[in-house]
Amino acid sequence: MKLASLKDGRDGRLVVVSRDLTKATEAGHIARTLQEALDRWDDVVGALADLAESLEHGSVPSFRFHEHECDAPLPRAYQWVDGSAYVNHVELVRKARGAEMPPSFWTDPLMYQGTSDSNIGPRDPVVVTSEEYGIDCEAEIAVFTGDVAMGASPGDARAAIRLVTLVNDVSLRNLIPAELAKGFGFFQSKPPTAFSPVAVTPDELGAAWNGGKLALPLLTSINGKPFGCPEAGEEMTFDFGTLIAHAAKTRPLGAGTIVGSGTVSNRDPDGSPGRPVAEGGRGYSCIAEIRMVETIKSGGPKTPFMKFGDVVRIEMKDRKGHSVFGAIENRIEPAGISK
Amino acid sequence: MKLASLKDGRDGRLVVVSRDLTKATEAGHIARTLQEALDRWDDVVGALADLAESLEHGSVPSFRFHEHECDAPLPRAYQWVDGSAYVNHVELVRKARGAEMPPSFWTDPLMYQGTSDSNIGPRDPVVVTSEEYGIDCEAEIAVFTGDVAMGASPGDARAAIRLVTLVNDVSLRNLIPAELAKGFGFFQSKPPTAFSPVAVTPDELGAAWNGGKLALPLLTSINGKPFGCPEAGEEMTFDFGTLIAHAAKTRPLGAGTIVGSGTVSNRDPDGSPGRPVAEGGRGYSCIAEIRMVETIKSGGPKTPFMKFGDVVRIEMKDRKGHSVFGAIENRIEPAGISK
Repeated sequence: MKLASLKDGRDGRLVVVSRDLTKATEAGHIARTLQEALDRWDDVVGALADLAESLEHGSVPSFRFHEHECDAPLPRAYQWVDGSAYVNHVELVRKARGAEMPPSFWTDPLMYQGTSDSNIGPRDPVVVTSEEYGIDCEAEIAVFTGDVAMGASPGDARAAIRLVTLVNDVSLRNLIPAELAKGFGFFQSKPPTAFSPVAVTPDELGAAWNGGKLALPLLTSINGKPFGCPEAGEEMTFDFGTLIAHAAKTRPLGAGTIVGSGTVSNRDPDGSPGRPVAEGGRGYSCIAEIRMVETIKSGGPKTPFMKFGDVVRIEMKDRKGHSVFGAIENRIEPAGISK
Repeated sequence: MKLASLKDGRDGRLVVVSRDLTKATEAGHIARTLQEALDRWDDVVGALADLAESLEHGSVPSFRFHEHECDAPLPRAYQWVDGSAYVNHVELVRKARGAEMPPSFWTDPLMYQGTSDSNIGPRDPVVVTSEEYGIDCEAEIAVFTGDVAMGASPGDARAAIRLVTLVNDVSLRNLIPAELAKGFGFFQSKPPTAFSPVAVTPDELGAAWNGGKLALPLLTSINGKPFGCPEAGEEMTFDFGTLIAHAAKTRPLGAGTIVGSGTVSNRDPDGSPGRPVAEGGRGYSCIAEIRMVETIKSGGPKTPFMKFGDVVRIEMKDRKGHSVFGAIENRIEPAGISK
């Protein structure tokens, strides 16, 4: 089943979307918003699944689905926590600045709490005050959970995964060093996050979903040029069950909590940092990573961060080449222009 | 005007409470929940104020207000960011571990993003898995904002303050060092936060509210013994306008964002760390602070963190001795006992 929130007020309007992303049908008689559906999941999931089947069969009224009419699936969410499940990426960050990564990072996930009260729609601009902030994308996978009890096991946590989505975790790289030096973690360096048009139930992902990981390549392009195609199912050190359980160690998680994978990242087959797409590699899911690889290989970064007018596109296709979640396509815009 | 959310589902039921906290009246015909009221504040604030006046005059149906029937004013909120406005407290933390505080801390607020999807009601237990986590309270002031534009000035931010409340920012001290060492800030060390029974409009606070600070003593007791009574209007380096503007530098803030002051803390009149209440001082708003003072004065902490069964009470009284927000009174309970 694929769900989306069409733009409508603060919380959007819930629709069910066809598998091929061409058609949609209103779901407001079942739940007005996706948050409401997640709040009452067990009561509504059957009716939503029935509606999805009827939509496939053409037996309910439908309309053409346009990805640019979508808000984020949860236009505002009560919780967004982002892990760093691809520890390869974290090790590269450290290596580029000449630091050793503590071995505990392979067993204890890094995680931060981000802002989620103003999530960005899939085709909406990413509005930033200054190019000097070092504007970067981070292509990630995320899951929306149901209620998760404090202290839940990774297995219980896996069972609470309701929906899977793609994320552009916008990062302001040049604000990070000073902010981390203060000791309290990211804040201004992590502005609102963009989401794919549709959120997809795990069962809909078929064999690509193994219960805690999504085994498909995550495609990122910048200004139309392929930038990354890493396999999201490979080198994910912590699966989503482990990430959710880590988040729930000292707190319950309410329905609609969003848990991110962190930047998807693969090594080269020989174990060295991944090569750019242009060199036949799988490329990267954020600019910071290619800059780190450039730094390790040639002493300094070459690829610039994003400028106003640049466009990042993030998408995932199944093995037959069909878009699974629709595409995130965000243009970077200066504050004061859009809205 | 004083507003509260009686326990009712995930988001509570909005009521208007009398100034003396003895009576309440249903406000569901104006807005079902406090979040809904904040979403449509300009449309509802007049009707809510009229209802509050009618309640004072006894011209609407009312019922006895019981603080223990309250959920947090926002039982779940889309954003909770906590500043460290009492820089005195931060300097003490550093001093106790023999570190200098960077001078920039006097001009650039420390702030972290916390969990707010499972806020704790004023008389609900604080549920923790283990006493070994180093359970502490932090008595704070917080404000609920309306919509705040990205890049808002401190003046614009001040104008967006809708409600003022008290907070018990529960902290798990023994989890903090390892977590901060990982570089991403607090996460498991900052479990859900408890809130006072009522949230109060700034105009209702009269002369105690200067537009960005609340000039009344914040009373904390532990197991019935007075623990702290610092003046919240003194030594607050960053007022709420400045904290909100800091939070909004790279993001808009949605209606219902909660911004905290950090632990309220006063120095002694001679400039040295505050003395305990038992020694005639104004005491502390968290156990970590008395432990730091003990460490500075005698080489090590003496006061233990909280144990299961301990009760922390946080309240603020006006100059006539009347409770302004009602009292937070949380018992520490082991996981698996309550709910």
